[in-house]
Amino acid sequence: MKIDGTAFRSIWIDETDRWSVRIIDQTKLPWAIEMPRFTTLDQVAHAISAMLVRGAPLIGATAAYGVALAMRADPSDASLDAAIETLAATRPTAINLRWALARMQSVLHDHPKAERAEAAYGEAAAICDEDVATNRAIGRHGLKLIETRARAGRRVNILTHCNAGWIATVDWGTALAPIYMAHDAGIDVHVFVDETRPRNQGASLTAWELGKHGVAHTVIADNAGGHLMQRGAVDMAIVGTDRVTSAGDVANKIGTYLKALAARDNGVPFYVALPSSTIDWAIADGLSDIPIEERAATEVTTVTGRALDGSIATVRVVPKDSNAANPAFDVTPARLVSGLITERGICAANAHALAAMFPEHAQRRAA
Amino acid sequence: MKIDGTAFRSIWIDETDRWSVRIIDQTKLPWAIEMPRFTTLDQVAHAISAMLVRGAPLIGATAAYGVALAMRADPSDASLDAAIETLAATRPTAINLRWALARMQSVLHDHPKAERAEAAYGEAAAICDEDVATNRAIGRHGLKLIETRARAGRRVNILTHCNAGWIATVDWGTALAPIYMAHDAGIDVHVFVDETRPRNQGASLTAWELGKHGVAHTVIADNAGGHLMQRGAVDMAIVGTDRVTSAGDVANKIGTYLKALAARDNGVPFYVALPSSTIDWAIADGLSDIPIEERAATEVTTVTGRALDGSIATVRVVPKDSNAANPAFDVTPARLVSGLITERGICAANAHALAAMFPEHAQRRAA
Repeated sequence: MKIDGTAFRSIWIDETDRWSVRIIDQTKLPWAIEMPRFTTLDQVAHAISAMLVRGAPLIGATAAYGVALAMRADPSDASLDAAIETLAATRPTAINLRWALARMQSVLHDHPKAERAEAAYGEAAAICDEDVATNRAIGRHGLKLIETRARAGRRVNILTHCNAGWIATVDWGTALAPIYMAHDAGIDVHVFVDETRPRNQGASLTAWELGKHGVAHTVIADNAGGHLMQRGAVDMAIVGTDRVTSAGDVANKIGTYLKALAARDNGVPFYVALPSSTIDWAIADGLSDIPIEERAATEVTTVTGRALDGSIATVRVVPKDSNAANPAFDVTPARLVSGLITERGICAANAHALAAMFPEHAQRRAA
Repeated sequence: MKIDGTAFRSIWIDETDRWSVRIIDQTKLPWAIEMPRFTTLDQVAHAISAMLVRGAPLIGATAAYGVALAMRADPSDASLDAAIETLAATRPTAINLRWALARMQSVLHDHPKAERAEAAYGEAAAICDEDVATNRAIGRHGLKLIETRARAGRRVNILTHCNAGWIATVDWGTALAPIYMAHDAGIDVHVFVDETRPRNQGASLTAWELGKHGVAHTVIADNAGGHLMQRGAVDMAIVGTDRVTSAGDVANKIGTYLKALAARDNGVPFYVALPSSTIDWAIADGLSDIPIEERAATEVTTVTGRALDGSIATVRVVPKDSNAANPAFDVTPARLVSGLITERGICAANAHALAAMFPEHAQRRAA
């Protein structure tokens, strides 16, 4: 999508040397737009582990380019194995990371060493292009939901939580893809952006990318969404997800469940946008089968932002003797989900509808 | 309640000179405990408007002592009228403020000038003592709910939102009064404290006062309460309120409604603690009849805390070109409230039960 009028992806090959890898450093957003250039595997591994890039699809794409850089430096089997091992260790729980690395290893294994670097760049580019195509398809399906509500030029108000935007993917995003398409189509769309404590991905990343593309938006405290729905200020909610079960339960950033409850209580449609690779066909019950990561208490006890003097500063917001707990995700039961927006279309959040839309997975499970 | 072992009220007459007024400066909490001494009406008025004291009951008590200071300086009718006018302007929406000032004016009007200062101090002290007695009664009724769940020495986990503790009142608090009584009675009680963005009264005030009294507690992001209830980690929720309608709808700090929804979805009892003076007998439908204050966007776009160097710093957490909205309260429909904990006992949140518990008000309305 665009940053102040110029189109970007979140990862690309440097246009001058045509081999080094460029990304947008997301740890600096929204206060600075820095686009570091990576020439080594170790730089890429650090970028993933230190969260200069985040978001499952983008992590996978970045790791693929990390393999390409390693093959350019040394195309041996030992180098390939070491690159896979190094990259796999950067974010141990990211499913897309392992998927992308397995794909790179499988493809490169069959190539002679002299062709591996070129093949690796090609496969990494394919992973990126496929992600963009998937998200574009999600956007087209979701756009219809927005168009239905945009009759007679009325503004459509959409609430989102955390960041499932273009910078969490290679381009378009998942939850935000339909919103960008609506905006680009001239529909008057406005987004309520949940701050998303404790890491503030809504306030710092979603607000930034919507603003840079020119999409109208308003940041709200995570506490405010229920009130806005009660007052009729929200036409629909669209969020992303980290994992969806075969029965349609949705794991996403902590707080998503509360907004789904408020949506149900007020008759507001609550949609979840996802590439089908996010579906975990091996589990059905999200509450019992999805482990919830407990992250560092310091994410709750501190807040980082820009101080008056322009520097980036961290302040403590909890008394020094008080404990804090930080569950990072919650599970929204399928019964609260109005629909799953996938690259194949919009699907009800239940086992039957998911199996009908993705029969190849349902068949594999049944086999 | 206690601060590190020493009992305090949130407002008191200086023990040395026996006429000046002391408070705990709540704008400095939790980072510093300062107890300024007020000798003039203007100092008291500033303390209310600048929120050195907050919480409806405490605001009323502070204003009463402001009148007493004014009468000590000049007991004339003109001085009394000016004091009332000055104090009434400090927080235009606070119901308890107007109630306390009307009471002071009514009492003092009947006294000759020579007796006014003494009468004003006496009436202010009575307002304070009555608040403490009311809250103690709320605590005793709420304690029974906790005792029921504390069988066999099991820890009782209670979630609360914002600050309805002793520093929002003269002592004991409303939502926290049952918790302090349980703690003091040796019950193993633990409190999940919602951070309560945007002003963070949970993280900064509730965590502070619970910690200083020695009550076990854990600060959580506002997003986390639903997840904790899903996992069975919360035995009950108790919150305070700014206004309750005659039908039991509850206005409280933004985000309360979301926790009430999660409590209902998970079978967790959701109680609201209040002095009956908080009930607005003139209205029934909270959603249509309670105006919701929209506060400054800067409360959402910034966070204040303690920097690494020990200084108090404010950081911006939203991109500079992004808008923010800040509704300060929401309305929890009576259907989501398990019970109202009042000074007369626990009452169902509906018109019939409220009228039965407070027949003098119901009769007045019917007349």
